[in-house]
Amino acid sequence: MRILILGGDGYLGWPTAMHFSARGHEVVVVDNYLRRNIARETSSEALFETPNLPDRASIFATVHGKHIEVIIGDCADYRTLESIVRSHRPEVLVHYAEQPSAPYSMMGFNEAQRTLQNNLGVTFNVVWALLQHAPQCHLVKLGTMGEYGTPNIDIEEGWIDVHHQGRSQRFLYPRQAGSLYHTTKVLDTDLLWFYVRAYGLRVTDLMQGPVYGLDTAETVGDQRLMPNFHYDDIFGTVVNRFLVQAVAGIPLTVYGRGGQTRGYLNLNDTLQCVELAAKSPVGAGELRVLNQFTELFSVNQLSERVKAAAARCGIDVRVEHLDNPRKELEEHYYNAKHHGLLQLGLEPHFMTEQVLVEMLERVARHKSAIDPRKVQPRVSWNVPNRGGQ
Amino acid sequence: MRILILGGDGYLGWPTAMHFSARGHEVVVVDNYLRRNIARETSSEALFETPNLPDRASIFATVHGKHIEVIIGDCADYRTLESIVRSHRPEVLVHYAEQPSAPYSMMGFNEAQRTLQNNLGVTFNVVWALLQHAPQCHLVKLGTMGEYGTPNIDIEEGWIDVHHQGRSQRFLYPRQAGSLYHTTKVLDTDLLWFYVRAYGLRVTDLMQGPVYGLDTAETVGDQRLMPNFHYDDIFGTVVNRFLVQAVAGIPLTVYGRGGQTRGYLNLNDTLQCVELAAKSPVGAGELRVLNQFTELFSVNQLSERVKAAAARCGIDVRVEHLDNPRKELEEHYYNAKHHGLLQLGLEPHFMTEQVLVEMLERVARHKSAIDPRKVQPRVSWNVPNRGGQ
Repeated sequence: MRILILGGDGYLGWPTAMHFSARGHEVVVVDNYLRRNIARETSSEALFETPNLPDRASIFATVHGKHIEVIIGDCADYRTLESIVRSHRPEVLVHYAEQPSAPYSMMGFNEAQRTLQNNLGVTFNVVWALLQHAPQCHLVKLGTMGEYGTPNIDIEEGWIDVHHQGRSQRFLYPRQAGSLYHTTKVLDTDLLWFYVRAYGLRVTDLMQGPVYGLDTAETVGDQRLMPNFHYDDIFGTVVNRFLVQAVAGIPLTVYGRGGQTRGYLNLNDTLQCVELAAKSPVGAGELRVLNQFTELFSVNQLSERVKAAAARCGIDVRVEHLDNPRKELEEHYYNAKHHGLLQLGLEPHFMTEQVLVEMLERVARHKSAIDPRKVQPRVSWNVPNRGGQ
Repeated sequence: MRILILGGDGYLGWPTAMHFSARGHEVVVVDNYLRRNIARETSSEALFETPNLPDRASIFATVHGKHIEVIIGDCADYRTLESIVRSHRPEVLVHYAEQPSAPYSMMGFNEAQRTLQNNLGVTFNVVWALLQHAPQCHLVKLGTMGEYGTPNIDIEEGWIDVHHQGRSQRFLYPRQAGSLYHTTKVLDTDLLWFYVRAYGLRVTDLMQGPVYGLDTAETVGDQRLMPNFHYDDIFGTVVNRFLVQAVAGIPLTVYGRGGQTRGYLNLNDTLQCVELAAKSPVGAGELRVLNQFTELFSVNQLSERVKAAAARCGIDVRVEHLDNPRKELEEHYYNAKHHGLLQLGLEPHFMTEQVLVEMLERVARHKSAIDPRKVQPRVSWNVPNRGGQ
């Protein structure tokens, strides 16, 4: 398959590029280093340096003997994206090119505007570049389980049949997200669903939960091929942050009561999921929604699991409940379906103690690089500073 | 009340400004003439010339002895909008400042991008200007009944209780719109609902149906105070277009089978509705959704009504069914609730034969100005031209 990956420098983008390339697909990656720039601007640099994208591709070529084409460019600029799609005519376009941090999107006007304009703008450009130059291409879009929020009814897989006063209608499952970042993904879904109906695009929208992990099959040959691993409050996902806190001897930072429940998955399962989605294209005019996670945990359960794994490594972990900087339910009903990817063949890697121990050992090699200032919450969901008033 | 009206030059904006000003409120209007510019670009000029906004305000001051402050500026530019909100500190902000044409939004990439960027961008800027400089202000936002589309169940007023597998949850009523323009209003609603929950804004979102009419209480003194009256396929609402076609002896253009049913209202009822909403502010953190229409008609029923009224004026009207340029259901279930505004005190002006006859007489004074090229559909909902490929 000819695969175009937007956001190919990201935590998921780079491992995805290697995964497809190693399996013989023709891979082109595009990135404008937005995440690296924001990480620097917010003092949220990753645990270890990762080479720039062309250097990563060179190292990958040396280690694995495969070519990944790299384009540094901004997909929010239509002429840039259009010319890439026109010249490469992808069969699959994987769209990761979004500002991925919820806290960043809640910092203030500038950060919110940048998140909205980038995320919705890239999705809009993807729609039009495909319509104009690759209308049969299968778009595999990264959404988030956070689009659904925490409703008091079961979360279905994208769609729900509503029975109302003796009649019924299938709708996109109603979405209400907890940050502006998550809301931009809701807007993406609305926009894609409209253009799928209007113009017959082919779209798979992956509602993904928080991801954890460092190693994939492709990183084994050279550590410089590892994904960028964030452990801060801005870009770090909660499991990665807990692992780093454990290694550094900092209490795990549980926000509020810790009953917040979400669906999690291993980085290696993200790669499986995206590959399974890409290999089973949908029909013209079809929007397929897949809930992409393998296990449900509350934040308290996660902290207990990390604590137990750390104990096996001889680390004594403390858990600290902080005032919740976010606005979210801390105890709630949560029952989210996730059959679609299993039906496509997903074989989950569960979060066993052994998996956590291996990650702790991996992180421990970088212990001296851990900056304790990065793991405390720095962004509050309260009304932002009124600026120049 | 101190009332700021964004989009104050529009078909609804200008009558709204006069309505509030005549009733003693302090009114500031902002507009950048986007609609006038697009009308010129698409050869969709209104039936008669209307003075520029400062001239309208001067004429209004002469006739009615009241001052309307005019600012020509682009609300999609945050610095412009912010400085207006900061200096005027409105108690009510009426947000009409959106590109309002569904066909325009379906013409191609540029028109779609302009619609998305303007509409969502202004709404985002409104949220932030209020947060930063007038957090207690009541935002009265114009949405559209078109956000709901034509589901097979009753359309409730903004919200629906979903009962699912033994549990229940109240959601925003699921929306699926039929054009990119209508979809931008769906995105507006999602964005507002997020920021209402996050930061406690006060918002009334008016889901309005197609409006018809030319005269209001304030236009009586001077015809130059009339709203811009579009009858073309781009900006003309269906009733206004039918009236002009009747006067010009052109067959009424019914798209497809004509069973498309929508909720309609008189321009004078729009003014009542907006005033009723403005006078009953909502609490902090509340999003009130009101369905704003007074009567349901199918397009066929409208064409029959216009035909009957025209007969009373001695005009023989033909009705023509065209291939539908849009993608929409032409026969469908439609039962939309609209209790909220009636409960607030709305006294509807129904579409009687007398009302239609008076409008026909009004339009007939401009008969010589009617351009038949403007009333045929010029925009198709099919995949747009692939441009420079």
